[in-house]
Amino acid sequence: MSDDAGDSKFTLTHLTEGGHAHMVDVGEKAVTSRRAVARARVRMQPETFVKLAAGDTPKGDVLAAARIAGIQAAKKTSELIPLCHGIQLTRVEVSIVLDGGIAVIDATAEARDRTGVEMEAMVAASTAALTLYDMVKAIDRGMTFDVCLVQKSGGKSGDWRREGEP
Amino acid sequence: MSDDAGDSKFTLTHLTEGGHAHMVDVGEKAVTSRRAVARARVRMQPETFVKLAAGDTPKGDVLAAARIAGIQAAKKTSELIPLCHGIQLTRVEVSIVLDGGIAVIDATAEARDRTGVEMEAMVAASTAALTLYDMVKAIDRGMTFDVCLVQKSGGKSGDWRREGEP
Amino acid sequence: MSDDAGDSKFTLTHLTEGGHAHMVDVGEKAVTSRRAVARARVRMQPETFVKLAAGDTPKGDVLAAARIAGIQAAKKTSELIPLCHGIQLTRVEVSIVLDGGIAVIDATAEARDRTGVEMEAMVAASTAALTLYDMVKAIDRGMTFDVCLVQKSGGKSGDWRREGEP
Amino acid sequence: MSDDAGDSKFTLTHLTEGGHAHMVDVGEKAVTSRRAVARARVRMQPETFVKLAAGDTPKGDVLAAARIAGIQAAKKTSELIPLCHGIQLTRVEVSIVLDGGIAVIDATAEARDRTGVEMEAMVAASTAALTLYDMVKAIDRGMTFDVCLVQKSGGKSGDWRREGEP
Amino acid sequence: MSDDAGDSKFTLTHLTEGGHAHMVDVGEKAVTSRRAVARARVRMQPETFVKLAAGDTPKGDVLAAARIAGIQAAKKTSELIPLCHGIQLTRVEVSIVLDGGIAVIDATAEARDRTGVEMEAMVAASTAALTLYDMVKAIDRGMTFDVCLVQKSGGKSGDWRREGEP
Amino acid sequence: MSDDAGDSKFTLTHLTEGGHAHMVDVGEKAVTSRRAVARARVRMQPETFVKLAAGDTPKGDVLAAARIAGIQAAKKTSELIPLCHGIQLTRVEVSIVLDGGIAVIDATAEARDRTGVEMEAMVAASTAALTLYDMVKAIDRGMTFDVCLVQKSGGKSGDWRREGEP
Repeated sequence: MSDDAGDSKFTLTHLTEGGHAHMVDVGEKAVTSRRAVARARVRMQPETFVKLAAGDTPKGDVLAAARIAGIQAAKKTSELIPLCHGIQLTRVEVSIVLDGGIAVIDATAEARDRTGVEMEAMVAASTAALTLYDMVKAIDRGMTFDVCLVQKSGGKSGDWRREGEP
Repeated sequence: MSDDAGDSKFTLTHLTEGGHAHMVDVGEKAVTSRRAVARARVRMQPETFVKLAAGDTPKGDVLAAARIAGIQAAKKTSELIPLCHGIQLTRVEVSIVLDGGIAVIDATAEARDRTGVEMEAMVAASTAALTLYDMVKAIDRGMTFDVCLVQKSGGKSGDWRREGEP
Repeated sequence: MSDDAGDSKFTLTHLTEGGHAHMVDVGEKAVTSRRAVARARVRMQPETFVKLAAGDTPKGDVLAAARIAGIQAAKKTSELIPLCHGIQLTRVEVSIVLDGGIAVIDATAEARDRTGVEMEAMVAASTAALTLYDMVKAIDRGMTFDVCLVQKSGGKSGDWRREGEP
Repeated sequence: MSDDAGDSKFTLTHLTEGGHAHMVDVGEKAVTSRRAVARARVRMQPETFVKLAAGDTPKGDVLAAARIAGIQAAKKTSELIPLCHGIQLTRVEVSIVLDGGIAVIDATAEARDRTGVEMEAMVAASTAALTLYDMVKAIDRGMTFDVCLVQKSGGKSGDWRREGEP
Repeated sequence: MSDDAGDSKFTLTHLTEGGHAHMVDVGEKAVTSRRAVARARVRMQPETFVKLAAGDTPKGDVLAAARIAGIQAAKKTSELIPLCHGIQLTRVEVSIVLDGGIAVIDATAEARDRTGVEMEAMVAASTAALTLYDMVKAIDRGMTFDVCLVQKSGGKSGDWRREGEP
Repeated sequence: MSDDAGDSKFTLTHLTEGGHAHMVDVGEKAVTSRRAVARARVRMQPETFVKLAAGDTPKGDVLAAARIAGIQAAKKTSELIPLCHGIQLTRVEVSIVLDGGIAVIDATAEARDRTGVEMEAMVAASTAALTLYDMVKAIDRGMTFDVCLVQKSGGKSGDWRREGEP
């Protein structure tokens, strides 16, 4: 996000002139191919990470539950985020890598639509992280996670990529 | 979470012996007063923060939408997190403080139940943060947020408080 | 609702001191037997009423769909109305009487809970009316309906009955 | 709704020949630009109206909650109304005007679809009214509201406008 | 399903290379007219069947409830089945025939989409059967039902018809 | 279900006197410990069974997805089955055994409630079977499944066990 502020895209488009929240009109926007990737990183105690990474079946299922929860949540985005439009996602994928004591969750969402799928990816990543937390919180209540958008493409505002991401 | 590992509470209770995810049996647990507080901190560009903090009505509604989305999501926790039990929350509150360039979202959940409300608080805080992101992402796609549990009370495992929290 | 304003029950309990919407704390309230009845009256063109009242099977199904939609909506109240608590309803009934050109929908909700079921009854009546509208709007788009609470009992604020109702 | 009765559009299209409710086939209908506006008018005690209109932050949030609830409900229309098709709304707006002791809620829904969005607008207006009721019922249980369609455009049946509306 | 195994369509497309469940990418698939019919057969005690078939109004409503539940469930398919894409159904119909002691439920789903509607038909038939079970289980807990796909058309894999079906 | 017909429990309790569906009043029923087990048996082509049983990770995830979908659906029972009461389940478990060419899905539901959990178990078993079908339908569209209640305990009507079950 560089120095092109002042541009029309720098307006809070979810607010009407009177400042009231509304679902913005996307009727005139073109249907294009949309894609977004979001990432959640779950940080935990070393012993928790070892437990998560070691066990075969347990790990399988903990991660499977988190992946599935992320996918299902992506489909609920417009229900969870008040001003999001309903979107027919053409693809959702949630991958989880256990690396250096951190569970890195990457969620990808795609659609052919009039509006972007950033929120779908963000919701998927967050919910996968929350599910992971739920399943191991009994042994590590202090776990934390952060969430960010990694990249998005398609639509009038074009491509965007978090700095430092390939 | 200190060095008392080995304790029975250090088991991944969401997995059966065969390692399969299931909703744990809480039928024998006592109905007690439960409370949990979770926090999400949303970090943004200084200009975004100024915009968010300045406008009266716009801010009102952005934060109102985030608070309401958080409250509604808390009630959907068992739908979003696969192995969570349904809980009848007796109270949910989401407060948002704009401070030092960061939006600090504190979500409190309470219930009289056989199981805790940590996930309800975590889901509320995360969804409020996601809503905030949704409403200002047009001007700041790089915004990030982190989520953690701040405290919980009630139930057999007793009270817990994040270190450094009063 | 008479002249006893000033009473503590005359406060907007869904707002915190700072004026922010929240789900009020009902943890300390007693679990009592709750009941509420709401009514929707759907007004239509005489020909629409005749069509609705005449046909045997058609009428059966239109009214059946409206009744079932009302019952299902009652169970979704806490999902639809942001600050409503989840409630385990012990009974829901939606009855529809076709009388004098008007479809009168009475919805009854009951629960043993810490909070009232007025909204559950109101939502059931409204949704049954909306479903009726949906099913005959092709022949009468101008149909209207009004909704009100008829009575409620249980809880600290006691019984209430709309004036003029038996 | 004029005198063109007898037209095929005057059939209860949600019923099959046997009189059984079903979701009508819209597969052959053209995708056109659809728009509908519905209105709910909430009537209350003068003191309630004053309270609602006076307070700055409280009003802000009560109305914000009602607007957001209306928008979210519009997206749930096909879940609430049994025979409604799922629709990807391109725009939803709920505006509330406090005027002459009445809260007038106008809900606008838009889509590019094979079927109309009247129900989405009706559901949004009703749910906003129900939310308003929920938030002030503690001080005025006798509040009532009525709901009607104001106008709709798009689709084979063309434009429709409630008599007396500009 | 004949002897053309080895074909690319004989892969479990819901699994990524690493074996992880994901919502497959249908972005490149063509939007075509899709249709599927599924069937559930509910078997019960002769006395139960007589009761179900005899009563006029009771039967009407039991079957009406089952039909409506089936239709509504079809619209929830992507919420229930983790890896299903959201689909905008253009038509859903659930018909129930009481024949020879068995309730035969046929559910038809149609859409113009990039992916098939088999699951929507299967979910509708199953949920109608479950609703029937729920409504008469008090008199016949031993009732059983089976579910199968009867036919599907549209999409790259073309038409399919259960052997022995016309 | 033997010859004690005529008993009051042999009435279709979901219908009012007028024959209209309603959610029966359970307010006076005692809160007791409830348990139900339902079973779905998924039949498939031998090659499908081999594929399902062989692969390690793929199988893991297919079955994990089915188990999780079953658990989540159990929590949605009152949303899917029109006249079911909302229930706070204290435990849900879905186990899947691959045996003799058949996938046998056993779903157990438990609660402390005024009403039984048979439908929760039936819905869980059905949805797990539907998910299994969804994930392998590309290779075996002809797969079928049947569903039945295996046992239930608790409540006024006491224990029930399918004949032939231990």
